[in-house]
Amino acid sequence: MADKVRIETDSFGPVEVPADRYWGAQTQRSLQNFRIGGERMPAPLVRALGIVKKAAAQTNMALGVLDAKIGAAIVDAAEEVIDGTLIDHFPLVVWQTGSGTQTNMNANEVISNRAIELLGGEMGSKKPVHPNDHVNMGQSSNDTFPTAMHVAAAEQVHHELIPALEQLHAALDAKAREFADIVKIGRTHLQDATPLTLGQEFGGYAQQVAYGIERAKSCLPALLRLAQGGTAVGTGLNARKGFDAAFAAEVEKITGLPFVTAPNKFEALAAHDSVVEASGVMNTLACSLMKIANDIRLLGSGPRCGIGEISLPENEPGSSIMPGKVNPTQSEAMTMVCAQVMGNHVTISQAGATGHFELNVFKPVMIYNLLQSIRLIADACRSFTENCVVGIEANRERIDRLMHESLMLVTALNPHIGYDNAAKIAKKAHKEGTTLMRAGIELGLLTEEQFRQWVRPEDMVGPR
Amino acid sequence: MADKVRIETDSFGPVEVPADRYWGAQTQRSLQNFRIGGERMPAPLVRALGIVKKAAAQTNMALGVLDAKIGAAIVDAAEEVIDGTLIDHFPLVVWQTGSGTQTNMNANEVISNRAIELLGGEMGSKKPVHPNDHVNMGQSSNDTFPTAMHVAAAEQVHHELIPALEQLHAALDAKAREFADIVKIGRTHLQDATPLTLGQEFGGYAQQVAYGIERAKSCLPALLRLAQGGTAVGTGLNARKGFDAAFAAEVEKITGLPFVTAPNKFEALAAHDSVVEASGVMNTLACSLMKIANDIRLLGSGPRCGIGEISLPENEPGSSIMPGKVNPTQSEAMTMVCAQVMGNHVTISQAGATGHFELNVFKPVMIYNLLQSIRLIADACRSFTENCVVGIEANRERIDRLMHESLMLVTALNPHIGYDNAAKIAKKAHKEGTTLMRAGIELGLLTEEQFRQWVRPEDMVGPR
Amino acid sequence: MADKVRIETDSFGPVEVPADRYWGAQTQRSLQNFRIGGERMPAPLVRALGIVKKAAAQTNMALGVLDAKIGAAIVDAAEEVIDGTLIDHFPLVVWQTGSGTQTNMNANEVISNRAIELLGGEMGSKKPVHPNDHVNMGQSSNDTFPTAMHVAAAEQVHHELIPALEQLHAALDAKAREFADIVKIGRTHLQDATPLTLGQEFGGYAQQVAYGIERAKSCLPALLRLAQGGTAVGTGLNARKGFDAAFAAEVEKITGLPFVTAPNKFEALAAHDSVVEASGVMNTLACSLMKIANDIRLLGSGPRCGIGEISLPENEPGSSIMPGKVNPTQSEAMTMVCAQVMGNHVTISQAGATGHFELNVFKPVMIYNLLQSIRLIADACRSFTENCVVGIEANRERIDRLMHESLMLVTALNPHIGYDNAAKIAKKAHKEGTTLMRAGIELGLLTEEQFRQWVRPEDMVGPR
Amino acid sequence: MADKVRIETDSFGPVEVPADRYWGAQTQRSLQNFRIGGERMPAPLVRALGIVKKAAAQTNMALGVLDAKIGAAIVDAAEEVIDGTLIDHFPLVVWQTGSGTQTNMNANEVISNRAIELLGGEMGSKKPVHPNDHVNMGQSSNDTFPTAMHVAAAEQVHHELIPALEQLHAALDAKAREFADIVKIGRTHLQDATPLTLGQEFGGYAQQVAYGIERAKSCLPALLRLAQGGTAVGTGLNARKGFDAAFAAEVEKITGLPFVTAPNKFEALAAHDSVVEASGVMNTLACSLMKIANDIRLLGSGPRCGIGEISLPENEPGSSIMPGKVNPTQSEAMTMVCAQVMGNHVTISQAGATGHFELNVFKPVMIYNLLQSIRLIADACRSFTENCVVGIEANRERIDRLMHESLMLVTALNPHIGYDNAAKIAKKAHKEGTTLMRAGIELGLLTEEQFRQWVRPEDMVGPR
Repeated sequence: MADKVRIETDSFGPVEVPADRYWGAQTQRSLQNFRIGGERMPAPLVRALGIVKKAAAQTNMALGVLDAKIGAAIVDAAEEVIDGTLIDHFPLVVWQTGSGTQTNMNANEVISNRAIELLGGEMGSKKPVHPNDHVNMGQSSNDTFPTAMHVAAAEQVHHELIPALEQLHAALDAKAREFADIVKIGRTHLQDATPLTLGQEFGGYAQQVAYGIERAKSCLPALLRLAQGGTAVGTGLNARKGFDAAFAAEVEKITGLPFVTAPNKFEALAAHDSVVEASGVMNTLACSLMKIANDIRLLGSGPRCGIGEISLPENEPGSSIMPGKVNPTQSEAMTMVCAQVMGNHVTISQAGATGHFELNVFKPVMIYNLLQSIRLIADACRSFTENCVVGIEANRERIDRLMHESLMLVTALNPHIGYDNAAKIAKKAHKEGTTLMRAGIELGLLTEEQFRQWVRPEDMVGPR
Repeated sequence: MADKVRIETDSFGPVEVPADRYWGAQTQRSLQNFRIGGERMPAPLVRALGIVKKAAAQTNMALGVLDAKIGAAIVDAAEEVIDGTLIDHFPLVVWQTGSGTQTNMNANEVISNRAIELLGGEMGSKKPVHPNDHVNMGQSSNDTFPTAMHVAAAEQVHHELIPALEQLHAALDAKAREFADIVKIGRTHLQDATPLTLGQEFGGYAQQVAYGIERAKSCLPALLRLAQGGTAVGTGLNARKGFDAAFAAEVEKITGLPFVTAPNKFEALAAHDSVVEASGVMNTLACSLMKIANDIRLLGSGPRCGIGEISLPENEPGSSIMPGKVNPTQSEAMTMVCAQVMGNHVTISQAGATGHFELNVFKPVMIYNLLQSIRLIADACRSFTENCVVGIEANRERIDRLMHESLMLVTALNPHIGYDNAAKIAKKAHKEGTTLMRAGIELGLLTEEQFRQWVRPEDMVGPR
Repeated sequence: MADKVRIETDSFGPVEVPADRYWGAQTQRSLQNFRIGGERMPAPLVRALGIVKKAAAQTNMALGVLDAKIGAAIVDAAEEVIDGTLIDHFPLVVWQTGSGTQTNMNANEVISNRAIELLGGEMGSKKPVHPNDHVNMGQSSNDTFPTAMHVAAAEQVHHELIPALEQLHAALDAKAREFADIVKIGRTHLQDATPLTLGQEFGGYAQQVAYGIERAKSCLPALLRLAQGGTAVGTGLNARKGFDAAFAAEVEKITGLPFVTAPNKFEALAAHDSVVEASGVMNTLACSLMKIANDIRLLGSGPRCGIGEISLPENEPGSSIMPGKVNPTQSEAMTMVCAQVMGNHVTISQAGATGHFELNVFKPVMIYNLLQSIRLIADACRSFTENCVVGIEANRERIDRLMHESLMLVTALNPHIGYDNAAKIAKKAHKEGTTLMRAGIELGLLTEEQFRQWVRPEDMVGPR
Repeated sequence: MADKVRIETDSFGPVEVPADRYWGAQTQRSLQNFRIGGERMPAPLVRALGIVKKAAAQTNMALGVLDAKIGAAIVDAAEEVIDGTLIDHFPLVVWQTGSGTQTNMNANEVISNRAIELLGGEMGSKKPVHPNDHVNMGQSSNDTFPTAMHVAAAEQVHHELIPALEQLHAALDAKAREFADIVKIGRTHLQDATPLTLGQEFGGYAQQVAYGIERAKSCLPALLRLAQGGTAVGTGLNARKGFDAAFAAEVEKITGLPFVTAPNKFEALAAHDSVVEASGVMNTLACSLMKIANDIRLLGSGPRCGIGEISLPENEPGSSIMPGKVNPTQSEAMTMVCAQVMGNHVTISQAGATGHFELNVFKPVMIYNLLQSIRLIADACRSFTENCVVGIEANRERIDRLMHESLMLVTALNPHIGYDNAAKIAKKAHKEGTTLMRAGIELGLLTEEQFRQWVRPEDMVGPR
């Protein structure tokens, strides 16, 4: 089957393409000229290109510049790109031209050929549906590709990331309520500190994620601004007046998300600060999640020789050599994801800083990394929630024992005997391996009665 | 002078400190134990600690837990920290304890001793003003230091960064208007493309900065949330109920910025996602400014062998060996600043991700880098504006000559003769070193009249 | 087909796996528990695991602890992993347990079942070949996985990266020779400077790559040290004395690369500084290649409105809207790859810094990124060489014209009339748009004869 | 004093400078044009510029192109730059021209004026010692500044970094010996694993640092290659043949380090891959040190509610609110330093990747960050060694108790009863909170005698 070919042409001349593929000459040239890595353009971006082509055809028909029959065929073919049917016809890798032109042409060629097929024409003839003149009508790769970047990122943030964060938040918040009455030792600098409840500790995590959801939402307005209508350099040459706003309205109809046309197309083509900004949100989320996942595995460390205040669900054997070992693997997957996202952010930032004049030509690497970051965080949040957080159990007995051994309960004495005297008690108890009460009494700084009245862990988990 | 010492004490015992310094035992120990680098705590943070101590004293007096005379002396001493008078009494470096405890104690000790002095007491006696029991009353380093971080960062963003960005925006915007009628060749992929105006090009830069101002403002709400009131682990132990909100109100009074108390103190001590977020904004700004500064030096490259479309102000000799050379030095300073800010962001992100349990102990390195980033961007924007942007001149003659030589004016022919025919014209002209018009006529694809009618650069800078 | 299942078991109990797959219970559990992203373990790592299992079986047979028949079957099955036949039986993603245990078990299970099949047994029975007791004999994931990381990375550096760099170096060096006699204007700060030859310019690029080859070689010694023999925590528990060195010798035999056993297994399990170091080399390479690729597209900018000193091969149409446009797409792919590698380095560094106690549990994300970096650089160097560098042509006429217009030829006058006088000439010529000679004569600083004698570009490309 | 001024001139005209400063017109212009941040050029770089100017004068005298009297005065003045006497005359910040020209001119001006003073001339007259024609003779900023970068970095690596690493290595190695007989529980995934000795654990850290010393040494050869002799663009225009090698020999004499002239000056000016490479070493060191410092604070966590296997020296009070609290502050300073170095590496990498044509113009920011990284690591290693490592004590009793409670001793049973049976024992013991021996006996898998014979922690710390 792969042996059968047909001839496709572009301004460089003819080229053979596999007969069972819809793509044309420019896609084929890219395949041959860019044998680099194996990372294909992400599926959400291909879908977004389908959305762009459909919306453009509808807009051009409405503006009266595109024949209705040709336009309808383009819309039908674009639908098959949108729903994923034609994903195997998008073989290009990320490491191509920095404008994404080759992937835009891939979309133009696939849709053109599929539309020709639907209309009973001959594939490769460009008739009656031309990839440039009809599918790409009023567009340039330079506005189409960044539009697809924004559509893909906004859809993924809205449909994947935010729900996954909400799921994690709900689970942490539920644990915060479940553990609200468990008083435990606090730890600062990894050293014993004053007490708090396990619920408060989980409440802190939940708060981090709650802010994370706000942050995820905050990057949407910039992503909802679309470059389409700027064409080659931002001026809108060869597009009709009003195309841009009408196009954005079509995209809103298709996606259900409130896209608008970018007020300044020059900025939208030449810089991708919005993508850097969105990646910055992913980076902040990664920092939050790294902290939470790390804390949870530390709290669950042991089972006998660590902190062991909580037990994590046992999902699978942990060791190929140590029988019975169970590990905090969900935390490990999460922290690896976070490290990836933090590195992706550097790639995106460097790429975003390195545009020239009217065009940033790091578009593919920027959207590849942003979409990977979004997906990894979303997936990891779901996995971490379902396979770890919801099954966390508190080891109440151990928590209680540890807390009562702590010397930092001494802090409750400050308002009664002053910092310096309290320090004397703590130091004596530490040095002699004794209790605070005994040390305090021996130093003559308080009575047993006073100690019992002043040092109550359950009274130490809030302001007076 | 340095030979004279007095004895100060802490819970570890006595230690000698220089007699002419207000600091006490813990500051002195830090000086001796952390001989690392030379980067002192930034001045805006020291000022912010003064603000915290003043606001805390006022709040404690209002709550009736701090003697009015002692409180008033603390307030007076804190004022001298706020206004910078005592800056030489803050000798500690960034590379100390990760909670910033030693710098908080530095503030407590300096204010205590200065207040003692004001009240006629003996420095080092801790009477009548104790550094812990009075100056640090109801506080812990763990809530004080992050509060000072937020106060310092918010003040710098509000008073330095945003005005500097506005100044740059105004200058770019003025140039956009000044250059509105200059039609020039566009460049994508560094290759000649369709025309735009020089004003549109500068308008793109202005838009980037306008969004940057929005981004700078967007990080303020999180920075305006204060950790104070959480004390040691977030519970508020040893603080009074209501201390947190009353404190924030005092800080608002002192600074004029709408600070509020953080709704969740556990998050505010254990994580510094807000600082990571703010640094993310600096990173996005750095990407924007890198692009703009780089474009401007490329546009000004030459004077004879580069692009040379604009001339930059000549501020100083450029070379120690090449006489008469003038360089785009403001762009260079700006791009170096941007590289610094992007690296700082990685430091801050890694630090932000690496907290444990109830406390992130990378506080000093986080705020050192954030404040450096804010200051560098603000200063560089001012310098770039005043010493470069306002003096940029357009080389109209050269711009015009280059534009008319470009082959990409051919794009205007697409709607008339189609992409494939237009490509033939451009390729022929390129190959033969001739004009588009001649190539088009020779190919029989258009007449001279049609060419002159269809290819008008001044009509190509907007949609039809 | 996918509907058919068989039962596999592990210490957690039975689990259904697809009947046509060799993997067992632990692989299946990982598939279910880690639905994160789509990035599978890279093929070179899977191959390396095959090498490890083969070498371990051979060593265990030689040590007399593994039955020869079982051992031979393991070797046969491992061969099919090595040669890629069984790649579809390694479905796990990177985002799993941080020790790579699940992928080590994937290898153990696949090899065990395939060996059982070869010996006529029943898959899933673990008889006569047990995944842990036989295939994993004397091993732990904790030494196996880092061993496979090193084997995979060393093979890729040796077989892919270094040859690709050598190919690029040869091409740049050839251009340096080809262009040796073309005197052109130099550019510093993007401004006109004193002349050099185009060959010298390309010679600088070639030198960068030559050093890059040295750097690539320099990271091999550390990668050639193998963790195997450390088992669970570095002590070598359950391995035989001498297993480690004998194993490394087997790996040397299989791969032809001089692997040795790591002198300290604790370091080899708990830290992956060698991977960070190797990634540092990739980062340095990325910086070199970014500079070279960027220079080449700037030198080729135009064709009419840029620098245009060289012409790059025209490989494909460059624009979906601008007919006849050709872009420096190979430079764009290369610079995108460089940005990716620089971000990957941050991920790897953060992961490398975050191990705990006896094990670093960011192993999969580290090797995924390192192997991606190696492959991308190698592939991009090949693509860049073949599709760009070898076809670069010098535009001699334009180069000559630009050079003679430059004012920086004035530098040759310094030894004759001093820097200050030379500066006067350059400034006058610049201001008046005239030539250096005329300005010099008008200023009375030299005669025409002197100028012609002193200012000879061809004499300015080396020391006196 | 600051009110008194004198007039200095450059090719831009006259400018007022403070009368008590040696600097001239170009330094003063830089001060006025670059009011950015407060980070001055690092002292080791200023010293290196002194070395360059001295070596250049000596070389020029030896080549017979510099008058002996003038040369001697330059040498005398340069000595005062080398020894730090004139450091207050180098006021410029990092954020200036990217070639460092202004700081090179600062050195030229200071040395010229000081030499004029020594010779009884009038400062600012440029007679008899001209800053460009004499002090900068045969040089350009473009080769001088990178030469100074390499000299400064090599000196700091050799004199500061390597000795500090050796000191840390010796201290860790001593602890490894001291703790050689202490058998303790291992931890992988933060979960209990098989035992090792505390000495083995510290031996792993020592090995990391030993490799780190090798890495630090490995970056020296590239730093020892000097750009001097390339002058403006790498060709060596206006330098004498042989100047470069003779100069390097002089620098070797002055510094005692085996500097050589770079074989390719184009590479040496246009790229700073050697600096990126050296920074890569700092990054790897940071990863190593982060791991070690983090482990040490985790091992010392507690004192009562953490792991508590070791005790760290108590150097200062740890809390402003919790009396008696002592924290692992040296680990905290070290990990903050590591985060800084990792971010600096990103800055340096981005800067290194962004040169254009014959010159990289991110020189100041690159060397500022590299020198900061070197100093911080060196200082932090010394501080960490002296104030933490040497005072670490093992808590033998606690270590022993934890180890005997661990379930992972079960691993020793694998060779006797197989992985699956061993897993059953571990799981039963964990579930029932009992001992491995009891669980094994109850399951009928072994006898008490067998257990005691097979499970001996002291036999588990090495291969059989």
